[in-house]
Amino acid sequence: MAGHKLRVGVAGIGTVGGGLVKLFEDDKARLNERLTLTAISARNRTRKRDVDISRYTWLDDPVELAANPDIDVFVELIGGSDGPAKRAVEIALKRGAHVVTANKALLAVHGEALAGLSEQYGGKLMFEAAVGGGVPVVKAMKESLAGSRVKSLSGILNGTCNYLLTEMETSGRAFADVLADAQRLGYAEADPTMDVGGFDAAHKITILAAIAFGAKPDFEHVKIEGVDVVTLHDIRLAGKLGYRIKLIAKAERIGDAVSMHVRPALLAFDHPLANVGGALNAVVADADPVGQLTFIGRGAGEGPTASAVAADLLDIAEGRGGPAFGKPLNQLASAARAAPAERGRFYMRLLVQDRPGVVAAVSDRLAHENVSIESFLQMPSYDAPIVPIVLTTQSCARAALDAAAAAIESLDAVTEPPRVMPIEDSGGRSRFWS
Amino acid sequence: MAGHKLRVGVAGIGTVGGGLVKLFEDDKARLNERLTLTAISARNRTRKRDVDISRYTWLDDPVELAANPDIDVFVELIGGSDGPAKRAVEIALKRGAHVVTANKALLAVHGEALAGLSEQYGGKLMFEAAVGGGVPVVKAMKESLAGSRVKSLSGILNGTCNYLLTEMETSGRAFADVLADAQRLGYAEADPTMDVGGFDAAHKITILAAIAFGAKPDFEHVKIEGVDVVTLHDIRLAGKLGYRIKLIAKAERIGDAVSMHVRPALLAFDHPLANVGGALNAVVADADPVGQLTFIGRGAGEGPTASAVAADLLDIAEGRGGPAFGKPLNQLASAARAAPAERGRFYMRLLVQDRPGVVAAVSDRLAHENVSIESFLQMPSYDAPIVPIVLTTQSCARAALDAAAAAIESLDAVTEPPRVMPIEDSGGRSRFWS
Repeated sequence: MAGHKLRVGVAGIGTVGGGLVKLFEDDKARLNERLTLTAISARNRTRKRDVDISRYTWLDDPVELAANPDIDVFVELIGGSDGPAKRAVEIALKRGAHVVTANKALLAVHGEALAGLSEQYGGKLMFEAAVGGGVPVVKAMKESLAGSRVKSLSGILNGTCNYLLTEMETSGRAFADVLADAQRLGYAEADPTMDVGGFDAAHKITILAAIAFGAKPDFEHVKIEGVDVVTLHDIRLAGKLGYRIKLIAKAERIGDAVSMHVRPALLAFDHPLANVGGALNAVVADADPVGQLTFIGRGAGEGPTASAVAADLLDIAEGRGGPAFGKPLNQLASAARAAPAERGRFYMRLLVQDRPGVVAAVSDRLAHENVSIESFLQMPSYDAPIVPIVLTTQSCARAALDAAAAAIESLDAVTEPPRVMPIEDSGGRSRFWS
Repeated sequence: MAGHKLRVGVAGIGTVGGGLVKLFEDDKARLNERLTLTAISARNRTRKRDVDISRYTWLDDPVELAANPDIDVFVELIGGSDGPAKRAVEIALKRGAHVVTANKALLAVHGEALAGLSEQYGGKLMFEAAVGGGVPVVKAMKESLAGSRVKSLSGILNGTCNYLLTEMETSGRAFADVLADAQRLGYAEADPTMDVGGFDAAHKITILAAIAFGAKPDFEHVKIEGVDVVTLHDIRLAGKLGYRIKLIAKAERIGDAVSMHVRPALLAFDHPLANVGGALNAVVADADPVGQLTFIGRGAGEGPTASAVAADLLDIAEGRGGPAFGKPLNQLASAARAAPAERGRFYMRLLVQDRPGVVAAVSDRLAHENVSIESFLQMPSYDAPIVPIVLTTQSCARAALDAAAAAIESLDAVTEPPRVMPIEDSGGRSRFWS
């Protein structure tokens, strides 16, 4: 356990990299007892930063830093599934160096190949910061849940989307408005596609599912829907019915197969994830026999992410860690792909012309497909003569609902395709949640 | 990492021990790839159990099991801070065997000495199951938070107390009633003192604080108050003011010192711990720079606790773990003891005779000590002519409030000593919690 201090090189000195340099400087976590930060690399050496980087060896090229034999641990904070991040990580692993990365895109897409390099050459590949920011869900899946069998995982894994939805609900402003504000404040990227399109959350659930289910990461298999389809109507109407809309990333075992998806869903107010607001991240794991575990914390930003990187560095220094995805690659299954569960309760929102007989016609189309209505709400018109109608169904087959929706869409009075979202089951735990 | 399978001996085949045997039998967590259960010991060999124990070597005496050189890992599920549990753990550690235990009393009281034996003879001492049942807070403190500096911890660490408080609130029945029911159902012990008196929660916060603050476990220093003082009046009245009463175990840094206490406190409904009901456990850690992290799950029972023991066994099999309290004993501080913070907001409940001038007299005594009232509630009498009055204060010194309480108690119309409880600050996070 003792021994020489591991020499750390960091590529990418943006928000997270800067936070990591600060952690070494103020040494609140006593990193310097076990590690020493020696070299860094970033795109722009002279950019104004609130940490002094002049005392570290500077390399313009992250790949050169990764290849440097004086670096024992290469920390990759560049980002992107390909390009310099991938080349640098590969080169570090190929010379047996350890790698710590916060790069979820890289791991989701190339995780299997990189874990292979880690095993082949003996350097560890650690990535607590890649999922959930400061929330230690990677370690929880790899180690704490090793004594149970995970049945399902669901989480709020993209802070930007969660912030946007929370802001829409609390301020009553539309998606585009709130997004523009978030971009101005630096909470959302200039090109927000990765976040609002659900891709970032999909990268993260890919990684967690691989560990939790002992399967190879399989990003291509995630069904992805983003928050850009959620309107203020939906948020308000769902609220009237006792639900909050969240972007949920979910993975579950269905027999021997695994289903993964990212999509907006309705959560009853007493669901463990319903009150996780703003930029927080959370994961709920359901496992046998441990039961349901919930983890909540800050999912992004300088401090939380740097702290997660530091925990990985200390794990490496202490000889902890183990295989990248919890098991050696030859023990990871190529799990069969399952579609998300086809039955459940659903929310359907219509915009209709306010005329007699519409409700009867809608009810009729649903009944024809054997879909039973659980609750029904027609609101006073805010945009006369168009009125919103929302309903929630009892448990039904998605296919039946889709057939009913198609029939409803063809009604004259219906002005746009019905908006359908699933209702997440709260797992019968509401008794213990207020 | 590979190597021979570790041979496991389990002492204590009650609820948790039985759960562990089942985990080896059905092997959901694939324990048998790395470990093999070979011998057990319990008080009563012939007691009816829902697992078949006949295939394992049986020893009547747990100390003999612990001393057996054919056992690589001794699992102690006997309980109690002294007696056979302590003797058995000592003997196992002294021959260099690893020990996994769920025994919080043993660790809180003798943790330092046992960690010393672990270091001296090289066997690991692991105890994820001792705190929070299935919630992996011990590992989180030891490893995941190693990249941050913990400022405070607060938690709901005793499921029995939390169940009793939740039941009182939801059923409107008094403490003694609910306790008697819980005893009948097996949710509370025949002698409930360890739980309802706050001692069990105190053992647990002692262990977590030692790890989080890098200090020796110091059980003697915890200020302890149980839930037996909480009345149905208090639960109802606090509810009217927007608070829920929980038994909170808390540890915090105050300068270079550490304060620890267990006591009933009021939590605003949007506090992260307020909606953790029933037998759930939860811990909120506040650390720099990771921010606030919340962990919630089942805090006791067969499945969760056995799963936590299994995770420790797998950590040992994989060569993870490290020092018992996260750092070698010679790096653990003997932290100075601080009293719990002396300022804050408080709840005060009075029972008074319903006569003119009482409210004025109470207000006057508070004003005389410079205690400002934040909210005030007088309820219609339910036990005429005695009426309850409750108030919450603005932030004030506890000493000032105690002085005012003494003066109020001496008023003729006041029929019993005022009941004072602290209000837990929600750390300004309410915005992100609904």
